[in-house]
Amino acid sequence: MGIHTYFRSLNDLERIIRAPGKFKFEEHSVSAHSWKVVQYAKTLADIEEQHGVAIDWKKLYEITSSHDYGEIFIGDIKTPVKHHSLELRSMLQQVEEGMIRHFIEENIPEELQDIFRRQLREGKDETVEGLILEVADKMDQVYEAFAELQRGNTEKEFIIMYRNALVKIKNIDLHCVRYFLDQILPDIIDESLISPIDVKQITEEALAL
Amino acid sequence: MGIHTYFRSLNDLERIIRAPGKFKFEEHSVSAHSWKVVQYAKTLADIEEQHGVAIDWKKLYEITSSHDYGEIFIGDIKTPVKHHSLELRSMLQQVEEGMIRHFIEENIPEELQDIFRRQLREGKDETVEGLILEVADKMDQVYEAFAELQRGNTEKEFIIMYRNALVKIKNIDLHCVRYFLDQILPDIIDESLISPIDVKQITEEALAL
Amino acid sequence: MGIHTYFRSLNDLERIIRAPGKFKFEEHSVSAHSWKVVQYAKTLADIEEQHGVAIDWKKLYEITSSHDYGEIFIGDIKTPVKHHSLELRSMLQQVEEGMIRHFIEENIPEELQDIFRRQLREGKDETVEGLILEVADKMDQVYEAFAELQRGNTEKEFIIMYRNALVKIKNIDLHCVRYFLDQILPDIIDESLISPIDVKQITEEALAL
Amino acid sequence: MGIHTYFRSLNDLERIIRAPGKFKFEEHSVSAHSWKVVQYAKTLADIEEQHGVAIDWKKLYEITSSHDYGEIFIGDIKTPVKHHSLELRSMLQQVEEGMIRHFIEENIPEELQDIFRRQLREGKDETVEGLILEVADKMDQVYEAFAELQRGNTEKEFIIMYRNALVKIKNIDLHCVRYFLDQILPDIIDESLISPIDVKQITEEALAL
Amino acid sequence: MGIHTYFRSLNDLERIIRAPGKFKFEEHSVSAHSWKVVQYAKTLADIEEQHGVAIDWKKLYEITSSHDYGEIFIGDIKTPVKHHSLELRSMLQQVEEGMIRHFIEENIPEELQDIFRRQLREGKDETVEGLILEVADKMDQVYEAFAELQRGNTEKEFIIMYRNALVKIKNIDLHCVRYFLDQILPDIIDESLISPIDVKQITEEALAL
Amino acid sequence: MGIHTYFRSLNDLERIIRAPGKFKFEEHSVSAHSWKVVQYAKTLADIEEQHGVAIDWKKLYEITSSHDYGEIFIGDIKTPVKHHSLELRSMLQQVEEGMIRHFIEENIPEELQDIFRRQLREGKDETVEGLILEVADKMDQVYEAFAELQRGNTEKEFIIMYRNALVKIKNIDLHCVRYFLDQILPDIIDESLISPIDVKQITEEALAL
Repeated sequence: MGIHTYFRSLNDLERIIRAPGKFKFEEHSVSAHSWKVVQYAKTLADIEEQHGVAIDWKKLYEITSSHDYGEIFIGDIKTPVKHHSLELRSMLQQVEEGMIRHFIEENIPEELQDIFRRQLREGKDETVEGLILEVADKMDQVYEAFAELQRGNTEKEFIIMYRNALVKIKNIDLHCVRYFLDQILPDIIDESLISPIDVKQITEEALAL
Repeated sequence: MGIHTYFRSLNDLERIIRAPGKFKFEEHSVSAHSWKVVQYAKTLADIEEQHGVAIDWKKLYEITSSHDYGEIFIGDIKTPVKHHSLELRSMLQQVEEGMIRHFIEENIPEELQDIFRRQLREGKDETVEGLILEVADKMDQVYEAFAELQRGNTEKEFIIMYRNALVKIKNIDLHCVRYFLDQILPDIIDESLISPIDVKQITEEALAL
Repeated sequence: MGIHTYFRSLNDLERIIRAPGKFKFEEHSVSAHSWKVVQYAKTLADIEEQHGVAIDWKKLYEITSSHDYGEIFIGDIKTPVKHHSLELRSMLQQVEEGMIRHFIEENIPEELQDIFRRQLREGKDETVEGLILEVADKMDQVYEAFAELQRGNTEKEFIIMYRNALVKIKNIDLHCVRYFLDQILPDIIDESLISPIDVKQITEEALAL
Repeated sequence: MGIHTYFRSLNDLERIIRAPGKFKFEEHSVSAHSWKVVQYAKTLADIEEQHGVAIDWKKLYEITSSHDYGEIFIGDIKTPVKHHSLELRSMLQQVEEGMIRHFIEENIPEELQDIFRRQLREGKDETVEGLILEVADKMDQVYEAFAELQRGNTEKEFIIMYRNALVKIKNIDLHCVRYFLDQILPDIIDESLISPIDVKQITEEALAL
Repeated sequence: MGIHTYFRSLNDLERIIRAPGKFKFEEHSVSAHSWKVVQYAKTLADIEEQHGVAIDWKKLYEITSSHDYGEIFIGDIKTPVKHHSLELRSMLQQVEEGMIRHFIEENIPEELQDIFRRQLREGKDETVEGLILEVADKMDQVYEAFAELQRGNTEKEFIIMYRNALVKIKNIDLHCVRYFLDQILPDIIDESLISPIDVKQITEEALAL
Repeated sequence: MGIHTYFRSLNDLERIIRAPGKFKFEEHSVSAHSWKVVQYAKTLADIEEQHGVAIDWKKLYEITSSHDYGEIFIGDIKTPVKHHSLELRSMLQQVEEGMIRHFIEENIPEELQDIFRRQLREGKDETVEGLILEVADKMDQVYEAFAELQRGNTEKEFIIMYRNALVKIKNIDLHCVRYFLDQILPDIIDESLISPIDVKQITEEALAL
């Protein structure tokens, strides 16, 4: 009852695992995902600034760091459910927003309620900050799916996750998307082509030293 | 691509954790929960039979063992979301049923499709088997919540889970519910009253042997 | 002291890991294994019924769901130990049965003792239900071993587990065994032949959309 | 070799556990800690702004989100080692800075090197942003230690961690520190005084409904 | 195929969990237990030497470090099974010894076979080294059970484990047993009497600094 | 306060994970590593003895079993930090030794302090026992790195770990090193060349039985 309730609740996101049952090699908590999105977004925004785009850093900070906080209230609903119909999607979003509103009214002191309403709003709008959040969120899906595929997970779900995330990213018109496609993605591909390590050869080289 | 796809998918439920982020002492997979519900329901049905009630064991088998299989498709949606409005609840149920229908059409050979439609139907109807499933499902919530509360977890969510499950159970009119309330629940309460072990005393007794 | 002791003990099987130290990619609890055996057996029995075989569903329910409950008492004894000599095997089985008998006498109220004696009996007899349990139990070994081998575990133990389970299954004369060999096993083999995902190609296709 | 190397490295921090061997109830990854620090700092800065203090949100974003990235290079050195002597401390800091410098030169493209040097600098300076980072970092120690102590961990290390963190916080002269001490800390204390749940009473109330 | 097979097999003992399903707060691998037994035995032997008893350090080294290696072959058989009858116990021991003999013949080069036969023999004989191994093994049960009981695990199994281990130890006539009972056990008892930490008081003291 | 504090602290090393964040397939605790080093060293010393070298088994026992105990005090400092400069290395070693000295003075009864000072000293000196410890410690790095590389981990860190450990070993002039290089290493290499299991072929063979 107070900010303490909110701060303590952050802890729970370390025990919520993304796409439970699917990652076979390395699982990810919502906390760790959130932090990586914060980190990607920071670099993406830096690249925008280098091209002369003005960034509202406060807004970017707010929307990236809190973008999955709502999972505490609604749980981990599978993507196909959310995409089933516009009607269901909007209904689920209303429920989530209602729960967040209710949480704020119950727990956040009046003088901070406006701030929390702004922080916990849906951040993926059409501003440059909203678009960067979308790119950063999808980039983590690219990285998460890549790490599984590279190690031999052949689950279709990750092929779809990887491909859909890439398609989403490439259709967003930002300088940093260009940078990602031209400078970062090729390194990911290159890494996927690395052959398994030849232990015999390393051994022989080491013994010959 | 056949029953294989279905059989292999069962494996994923061992990695889906119930109420993620909430259990602080012992987590539970959907597989383990499903198995315990199967086990409780068996004894509950035995008690009904002892009172002369006829049990359709095939039906009971089907609905208890598969009752949470749908979580593979929709994920773990928090209870308050499901209970938000009748409209949302029915919409989510429709989506789940649609996904199961689609899965069956895509993967299950025609000669077995009817069987799978029956097996994967919503089992909690007003028959004695449907009611037993409801009791068994809620009994596992009683046990899961009890195990946390007993060890000192003070999270409100478990008090609510424990209390709501008990209320649901006691309002179901079955012989086995009577048995549970009269014969089993008192043992649970007694266990909650056990004092912590007095290591000093055990030590002294052991040394005096 | 009462059914509560039995119900609470079910929880322990979620922490007993099968073949400890051997699974390198995905471990399995006895609970999850038990639930999968229940699920396989259900479909296998459906297939028998389709061929006109009568199934005693109550018996099948009882013996599949409880078939590994005895591990709570005796622990996880390695297969080669059990198979060392007929004498040792029968002695171990006697000990297990004695412990179960003792547990029932200590904990189960008199009016339910007969039911528990029946439920917790050794289920793998020569009836169709006993044989289905044997097939379902071995099928889970096929799936467990396959999942390891497919991901690159070269441990001999899994080759032996996979092969022995298959041999056991194919020598059982049931319609559902025929179905497994003809309709399900080929899909397992096909899955073993899937090449690793070509990330480069998926990327290029996604970018070309 | 490029930003990809940096982005991929973020993933490793999800597997680095804080104070390994010490947390008995709930472990924390460096990723999750970093995200919580980001979240606390955001609210702390909001409180400062409400008191008319100007916040450089870009700087705050940079220093909070990256403040423990260096652990990838140096590992988790115990606090008493770092505090052993000013000489050792400054030497370790030089090594860390040298490794970060070297990582940037090796992996970050020239046009982004200045940005990364700024982002990965030591952030705990005497500016308001540096002080907020210090408060937020210590607040997570308060929460981490509190969660252990509250559940019955009597390890001296957590008493010291809790106490030292509080002392550090209270000696920082910020509006948000005042707010924390007056509005948040009392709720933490209140929570520590909650008695264990009385299962008997909840049961009786539920049955009386 | 050589010592490599033996060395590689050591790794498996890190995944074999002692008393699976029973430890609720902290699980222990056979590797970690083995290492702790090695460490306790070393100090116990030091105490014997201080009293003028001659220690065969090579023998002590061999029998303590390998004392549970046989679990790789036979698995984790519950104590009550082993103690069921002298006949079963001796039969199980024969099987274990047979498997170890077979493993040595198959895998260990001839010139080292005698050494391995000696190392992997049953070490708990009536020599001082054999007795120290017994004390050290039981001491780890005391510590393992104590850690559970102290945190509120009320499982009877741990009371029995703690008590039986103590009784076994106190009946062994060694100087180090005397030392354990007089100097170490009282500190264990004292620790069991520590009250939970009073967070409120620590907080007030910290703020008053 | 007494040996109890020391014995209880051993437990913490089971929760300290080596090279956190790096092992992708199988993590290793410091306890398990310590036990494996004890085991390797025993066989290495046996080989030395076979060549007529006298072994001080008490010393070997002491230095192998305790060689990483100091990690409790200083944590897991990354190898490149330790190797950064001779000055830093010696300063860190002094801090570790100071902490161990302080721990002994605080906790170990006077009559055992000399023993503990000897046991917890740095063991890697130029005696045959010190060299065997060095070989055994590096052998575990060979095995740990090999297990990752063999399963497809392409992380450079493991290539370097594997190679550096091999180079260190081969430059030590002991009979057991010769044995390792001639008799054991070739089996490791052979294992690295094993092709993935051909599930299709095993299946066909099993069905043909």
